[in-house]
Amino acid sequence: MFHKEFKFAKFAVDTMINPFTDEYFMKKALQEAVMAFDKEEIPVGAVIVIDNKVIASSHNLTELLHDVTAHAEMQSITAAANYLGGKYLIGCTLYVTLEPCQMCAGALYWSQISRIVYGATDENRGFVKMGTQLHPKTKVVSGVLAAEAADVMKRFFKEKRK
Amino acid sequence: MFHKEFKFAKFAVDTMINPFTDEYFMKKALQEAVMAFDKEEIPVGAVIVIDNKVIASSHNLTELLHDVTAHAEMQSITAAANYLGGKYLIGCTLYVTLEPCQMCAGALYWSQISRIVYGATDENRGFVKMGTQLHPKTKVVSGVLAAEAADVMKRFFKEKRK
Repeated sequence: MFHKEFKFAKFAVDTMINPFTDEYFMKKALQEAVMAFDKEEIPVGAVIVIDNKVIASSHNLTELLHDVTAHAEMQSITAAANYLGGKYLIGCTLYVTLEPCQMCAGALYWSQISRIVYGATDENRGFVKMGTQLHPKTKVVSGVLAAEAADVMKRFFKEKRK
Repeated sequence: MFHKEFKFAKFAVDTMINPFTDEYFMKKALQEAVMAFDKEEIPVGAVIVIDNKVIASSHNLTELLHDVTAHAEMQSITAAANYLGGKYLIGCTLYVTLEPCQMCAGALYWSQISRIVYGATDENRGFVKMGTQLHPKTKVVSGVLAAEAADVMKRFFKEKRK
Protein backbone atom coordinates (compact mmCIF):
# COMPACT_ATOMS: atom_id res chain seq x y z
CA MET A 1 0.00 0.00 0.00
CA PHE A 2 2.78 2.31 0.94
CA HIS A 3 4.46 1.46 -2.35
CA LYS A 4 1.30 2.26 -4.35
CA GLU A 5 0.87 5.62 -2.63
CA PHE A 6 4.52 6.38 -3.23
CA LYS A 7 4.11 5.67 -6.93
CA PHE A 8 1.09 7.95 -7.08
CA ALA A 9 2.94 10.71 -5.25
CA LYS A 10 5.87 10.32 -7.62
CA PHE A 11 3.54 10.62 -10.62
CA ALA A 12 1.95 13.75 -9.13
CA VAL A 13 5.35 15.31 -8.57
CA ASP A 14 6.54 14.35 -12.07
CA THR A 15 3.44 15.97 -13.53
CA MET A 16 4.03 19.09 -11.44
CA ILE A 17 7.61 19.24 -12.64
CA ASN A 18 6.70 18.56 -16.28
CA PRO A 19 3.07 19.05 -17.24
CA PHE A 20 4.06 18.85 -20.92
CA THR A 21 3.29 15.21 -21.55
CA ASP A 22 2.28 13.73 -24.89
CA GLU A 23 -1.30 13.65 -23.58
CA TYR A 24 -1.11 17.36 -22.82
CA PHE A 25 -0.28 18.26 -26.43
CA MET A 26 -2.59 15.62 -27.89
CA LYS A 27 -5.46 17.33 -26.04
CA LYS A 28 -4.63 20.47 -27.99
CA ALA A 29 -4.72 18.49 -31.23
CA LEU A 30 -8.09 17.07 -30.15
CA GLN A 31 -9.41 20.58 -29.60
CA GLU A 32 -8.42 21.31 -33.19
CA ALA A 33 -10.23 18.16 -34.33
CA VAL A 34 -13.39 19.40 -32.64
CA MET A 35 -13.03 22.71 -34.53
CA ALA A 36 -12.97 20.71 -37.77
CA PHE A 37 -16.03 18.77 -36.61
CA ASP A 38 -17.91 22.02 -36.04
CA LYS A 39 -17.15 23.05 -39.64
CA GLU A 40 -18.41 19.69 -40.94
CA GLU A 41 -14.87 18.66 -41.90
CA ILE A 42 -13.53 15.17 -41.17
CA PRO A 43 -12.36 15.87 -37.60
CA VAL A 44 -8.58 15.66 -37.57
CA GLY A 45 -6.44 18.12 -35.63
CA ALA A 46 -2.72 18.67 -35.32
CA VAL A 47 -0.18 20.74 -33.42
CA ILE A 48 3.59 21.03 -33.79
CA VAL A 49 5.69 21.56 -30.69
CA ILE A 50 9.33 22.53 -30.12
CA ASP A 51 10.85 22.82 -26.63
CA ASN A 52 7.37 22.38 -25.10
CA LYS A 53 6.04 25.31 -27.12
CA VAL A 54 3.22 24.99 -29.64
CA ILE A 55 4.40 26.69 -32.84
CA ALA A 56 1.60 25.52 -35.16
CA SER A 57 -1.95 24.26 -34.78
CA SER A 58 -4.48 23.42 -37.45
CA HIS A 59 -7.38 21.23 -38.42
CA ASN A 60 -8.55 19.59 -41.59
CA LEU A 61 -10.03 22.08 -44.08
CA THR A 62 -10.28 20.02 -47.27
CA GLU A 63 -13.99 20.71 -47.80
CA LEU A 64 -13.96 24.41 -46.98
CA LEU A 65 -10.91 25.07 -49.16
CA HIS A 66 -11.83 22.52 -51.88
CA ASP A 67 -8.29 21.26 -51.51
CA VAL A 68 -7.14 17.70 -50.88
CA THR A 69 -3.81 19.05 -49.64
CA ALA A 70 -5.42 20.95 -46.73
CA HIS A 71 -4.98 18.15 -44.19
CA ALA A 72 -4.26 19.27 -40.62
CA GLU A 73 -0.68 17.98 -40.77
CA MET A 74 0.15 19.78 -44.03
CA GLN A 75 -1.00 23.12 -42.69
CA SER A 76 0.95 22.64 -39.48
CA ILE A 77 4.11 21.65 -41.36
CA THR A 78 3.89 24.85 -43.43
CA ALA A 79 3.11 27.00 -40.39
CA ALA A 80 5.87 25.54 -38.21
CA ALA A 81 8.49 25.96 -40.94
CA ASN A 82 7.30 29.51 -41.43
CA TYR A 83 7.68 30.14 -37.69
CA LEU A 84 11.16 28.61 -37.63
CA GLY A 85 12.28 30.33 -40.83
CA GLY A 86 13.57 27.08 -42.29
CA LYS A 87 12.00 24.08 -43.95
CA TYR A 88 13.40 21.37 -41.65
CA LEU A 89 11.49 20.47 -38.49
CA ILE A 90 14.39 18.92 -36.60
CA GLY A 91 13.68 19.04 -32.86
CA CYS A 92 9.92 19.28 -33.44
CA THR A 93 7.13 16.87 -32.54
CA LEU A 94 3.90 16.61 -34.53
CA TYR A 95 0.82 15.62 -32.54
CA VAL A 96 -2.05 14.49 -34.74
CA THR A 97 -5.30 12.83 -33.74
CA LEU A 98 -5.33 10.37 -36.66
CA GLU A 99 -2.51 8.39 -38.24
CA PRO A 100 -1.09 10.42 -41.17
CA CYS A 101 -1.87 9.41 -44.77
CA GLN A 102 0.66 8.86 -47.60
CA MET A 103 0.69 12.55 -48.52
CA CYS A 104 1.25 13.79 -44.98
CA ALA A 105 3.82 11.10 -44.19
CA GLY A 106 5.58 12.04 -47.44
CA ALA A 107 5.68 15.70 -46.36
CA LEU A 108 6.93 14.65 -42.89
CA TYR A 109 9.65 12.62 -44.61
CA TRP A 110 10.94 15.75 -46.35
CA SER A 111 10.68 17.82 -43.16
CA GLN A 112 12.94 15.42 -41.21
CA ILE A 113 10.70 16.00 -38.18
CA SER A 114 12.10 14.39 -35.02
CA ARG A 115 8.90 12.85 -33.60
CA ILE A 116 5.38 12.00 -34.71
CA VAL A 117 2.79 11.21 -32.05
CA TYR A 118 -0.59 10.09 -33.30
CA GLY A 119 -3.85 9.02 -31.73
CA ALA A 120 -6.18 6.70 -33.64
CA THR A 121 -4.97 4.28 -36.29
CA ASP A 122 -6.23 4.62 -39.88
CA GLU A 123 -6.50 0.99 -40.91
CA ASN A 124 -7.31 1.81 -44.53
CA ARG A 125 -5.36 4.87 -45.54
CA GLY A 126 -2.75 5.31 -42.81
CA PHE A 127 0.92 5.46 -43.79
CA VAL A 128 1.76 2.24 -41.92
CA LYS A 129 -0.63 0.13 -44.00
CA MET A 130 0.28 2.06 -47.18
CA GLY A 131 3.99 1.55 -46.57
CA THR A 132 4.98 5.21 -46.81
CA GLN A 133 8.55 5.84 -45.76
CA LEU A 134 9.42 8.33 -43.01
CA HIS A 135 12.82 9.92 -42.51
CA PRO A 136 15.18 7.43 -40.78
CA LYS A 137 15.66 9.88 -37.87
CA THR A 138 11.91 10.29 -37.19
CA LYS A 139 10.56 8.49 -34.10
CA VAL A 140 6.90 7.47 -34.01
CA VAL A 141 4.55 7.02 -31.04
CA SER A 142 0.99 5.82 -31.65
CA GLY A 143 -2.17 5.36 -29.59
CA VAL A 144 -2.01 8.54 -27.48
CA LEU A 145 -5.63 9.43 -26.58
CA ALA A 146 -6.60 7.08 -29.38
CA ALA A 147 -10.05 6.34 -27.96
CA GLU A 148 -10.89 10.05 -27.78
CA ALA A 149 -9.69 10.67 -31.34
CA ALA A 150 -11.58 7.65 -32.67
CA ASP A 151 -14.69 8.74 -30.80
CA VAL A 152 -14.74 12.17 -32.52
CA MET A 153 -14.41 10.42 -35.88
CA LYS A 154 -17.20 7.95 -35.08
CA ARG A 155 -19.53 10.74 -34.00
CA PHE A 156 -18.75 12.63 -37.22
CA PHE A 157 -19.58 9.74 -39.54
CA LYS A 158 -22.70 8.91 -37.50
CA GLU A 159 -23.91 12.51 -37.95
CA LYS A 160 -23.06 12.35 -41.68
CA ARG A 161 -25.20 9.27 -42.20
CA LYS A 162 -28.24 11.00 -40.73
CA MET B 1 9.50 5.81 -99.63
CA PHE B 2 5.98 6.77 -100.41
CA HIS B 3 4.91 5.08 -97.19
CA LYS B 4 7.38 7.11 -95.15
CA GLU B 5 6.23 10.38 -96.69
CA PHE B 6 2.66 9.39 -96.15
CA LYS B 7 3.38 8.74 -92.48
CA PHE B 8 5.05 12.10 -92.15
CA ALA B 9 2.14 13.81 -93.89
CA LYS B 10 -0.27 12.00 -91.62
CA PHE B 11 1.68 13.17 -88.55
CA ALA B 12 1.68 16.74 -89.87
CA VAL B 13 -2.06 16.62 -90.45
CA ASP B 14 -2.66 15.05 -87.03
CA THR B 15 -0.61 17.78 -85.41
CA MET B 16 -2.52 20.41 -87.34
CA ILE B 17 -5.78 18.91 -86.20
CA ASN B 18 -4.63 18.43 -82.61
CA PRO B 19 -1.58 20.39 -81.56
CA PHE B 20 -2.32 19.53 -77.92
CA THR B 21 -0.07 16.53 -77.54
CA ASP B 22 1.54 15.38 -74.29
CA GLU B 23 4.78 16.92 -75.57
CA TYR B 24 3.03 20.26 -76.07
CA PHE B 25 1.95 20.46 -72.42
CA MET B 26 5.17 18.96 -71.11
CA LYS B 27 7.01 21.83 -72.79
CA LYS B 28 4.96 24.20 -70.64
CA ALA B 29 5.95 22.21 -67.54
CA LEU B 30 9.59 22.45 -68.69
CA GLN B 31 9.27 26.23 -68.97
CA GLU B 32 8.13 26.20 -65.34
CA ALA B 33 11.13 24.05 -64.40
CA VAL B 34 13.42 26.64 -65.97
CA MET B 35 11.72 29.32 -63.85
CA ALA B 36 12.58 27.27 -60.74
CA PHE B 37 16.16 26.91 -62.00
CA ASP B 38 16.47 30.69 -62.33
CA LYS B 39 15.39 31.04 -58.67
CA GLU B 40 17.98 28.45 -57.58
CA GLU B 41 15.24 25.95 -56.76
CA ILE B 42 15.51 22.28 -57.76
CA PRO B 43 14.08 22.65 -61.28
CA VAL B 44 10.76 20.85 -61.38
CA GLY B 45 7.74 22.30 -63.17
CA ALA B 46 4.13 21.22 -63.50
CA VAL B 47 0.93 22.14 -65.29
CA ILE B 48 -2.60 20.76 -64.95
CA VAL B 49 -4.79 20.57 -68.03
CA ILE B 50 -8.49 19.94 -68.58
CA ASP B 51 -10.05 19.81 -72.05
CA ASN B 52 -6.76 20.99 -73.58
CA LYS B 53 -6.76 24.07 -71.36
CA VAL B 54 -4.01 24.79 -68.82
CA ILE B 55 -5.76 25.60 -65.52
CA ALA B 56 -2.70 25.58 -63.24
CA SER B 57 1.04 25.99 -63.66
CA SER B 58 3.74 26.11 -61.03
CA HIS B 59 7.31 25.31 -60.16
CA ASN B 60 9.12 24.11 -57.09
CA LEU B 61 9.44 26.82 -54.42
CA THR B 62 10.59 24.85 -51.37
CA GLU B 63 13.67 27.02 -50.74
CA LEU B 64 12.06 30.39 -51.29
CA LEU B 65 9.05 29.54 -49.12
CA HIS B 66 11.00 27.44 -46.56
CA ASP B 67 8.33 24.82 -47.08
CA VAL B 68 8.79 21.16 -47.98
CA THR B 69 5.18 21.05 -49.17
CA ALA B 70 5.79 23.64 -51.92
CA HIS B 71 6.54 21.11 -54.66
CA ALA B 72 5.36 22.06 -58.15
CA GLU B 73 2.67 19.35 -58.13
CA MET B 74 1.21 20.39 -54.77
CA GLN B 75 0.81 23.99 -55.87
CA SER B 76 -0.81 22.96 -59.14
CA ILE B 77 -3.22 20.58 -57.37
CA THR B 78 -4.35 23.41 -55.08
CA ALA B 79 -4.60 25.91 -57.95
CA ALA B 80 -6.51 23.55 -60.26
CA ALA B 81 -9.02 22.64 -57.54
CA ASN B 82 -9.44 26.32 -56.79
CA TYR B 83 -10.12 26.98 -60.48
CA LEU B 84 -12.62 24.13 -60.71
CA GLY B 85 -14.30 24.98 -57.40
CA GLY B 86 -14.07 21.39 -56.18
CA LYS B 87 -11.35 19.23 -54.73
CA TYR B 88 -11.48 16.35 -57.24
CA LEU B 89 -9.42 16.59 -60.42
CA ILE B 90 -11.42 14.08 -62.45
CA GLY B 91 -10.90 14.74 -66.16
CA CYS B 92 -7.59 16.51 -65.50
CA THR B 93 -4.05 15.61 -66.53
CA LEU B 94 -0.99 16.61 -64.52
CA TYR B 95 2.19 17.17 -66.54
CA VAL B 96 5.30 17.23 -64.37
CA THR B 97 8.92 17.19 -65.45
CA LEU B 98 10.06 14.77 -62.71
CA GLU B 99 8.36 11.67 -61.29
CA PRO B 100 6.28 12.69 -58.26
CA CYS B 101 7.47 11.86 -54.73
CA GLN B 102 5.47 10.09 -51.98
CA MET B 103 3.87 13.34 -50.81
CA CYS B 104 2.78 14.47 -54.27
CA ALA B 105 1.60 10.99 -55.27
CA GLY B 106 -0.35 10.87 -51.99
CA ALA B 107 -2.01 14.20 -52.82
CA LEU B 108 -2.76 12.96 -56.36
CA TYR B 109 -4.33 9.85 -54.83
CA TRP B 110 -6.79 12.01 -52.89
CA SER B 111 -7.49 14.21 -55.93
CA GLN B 112 -8.55 11.21 -58.07
CA ILE B 113 -6.82 12.90 -61.02
CA SER B 114 -7.44 11.08 -64.31
CA ARG B 115 -3.92 11.15 -65.78
CA ILE B 116 -0.37 11.80 -64.69
CA VAL B 117 2.28 12.38 -67.35
CA TYR B 118 5.82 12.74 -66.14
CA GLY B 119 9.22 13.27 -67.73
CA ALA B 120 12.33 12.04 -65.96
CA THR B 121 12.33 9.15 -63.50
CA ASP B 122 13.38 9.76 -59.88
CA GLU B 123 15.19 6.53 -59.08
CA ASN B 124 15.64 7.36 -55.40
CA ARG B 125 12.57 9.20 -54.20
CA GLY B 126 10.00 8.68 -56.93
CA PHE B 127 6.62 7.18 -56.02
CA VAL B 128 7.21 4.04 -58.11
CA LYS B 129 10.32 3.01 -56.14
CA MET B 130 8.71 4.15 -52.85
CA GLY B 131 5.56 2.15 -53.56
CA THR B 132 3.11 5.01 -53.08
CA GLN B 133 -0.41 4.12 -54.15
CA LEU B 134 -2.30 6.19 -56.73
CA HIS B 135 -6.06 6.20 -57.16
CA PRO B 136 -7.16 3.09 -59.10
CA LYS B 137 -8.68 5.29 -61.83
CA THR B 138 -5.49 7.30 -62.42
CA LYS B 139 -3.55 6.48 -65.61
CA VAL B 140 0.20 7.12 -65.72
CA VAL B 141 2.46 7.92 -68.68
CA SER B 142 6.20 8.31 -68.12
CA GLY B 143 9.20 9.39 -70.16
CA VAL B 144 7.67 12.36 -72.03
CA LEU B 145 10.54 14.76 -72.82
CA ALA B 146 12.47 12.86 -70.15
CA ALA B 147 15.89 13.76 -71.58
CA GLU B 148 15.07 17.48 -71.52
CA ALA B 149 13.77 17.28 -67.91
CA ALA B 150 16.79 15.27 -66.76
CA ASP B 151 19.12 17.71 -68.51
CA VAL B 152 17.72 20.71 -66.57
CA MET B 153 18.22 18.76 -63.33
CA LYS B 154 21.79 17.77 -64.25
CA ARG B 155 22.68 21.36 -65.11
CA PHE B 156 21.23 22.51 -61.78
CA PHE B 157 23.26 20.10 -59.65
CA LYS B 158 26.41 20.81 -61.70
CA GLU B 159 25.98 24.55 -60.99
CA LYS B 160 25.34 23.79 -57.29
CA ARG B 161 28.60 21.88 -56.95
CA LYS B 162 30.62 24.84 -58.25
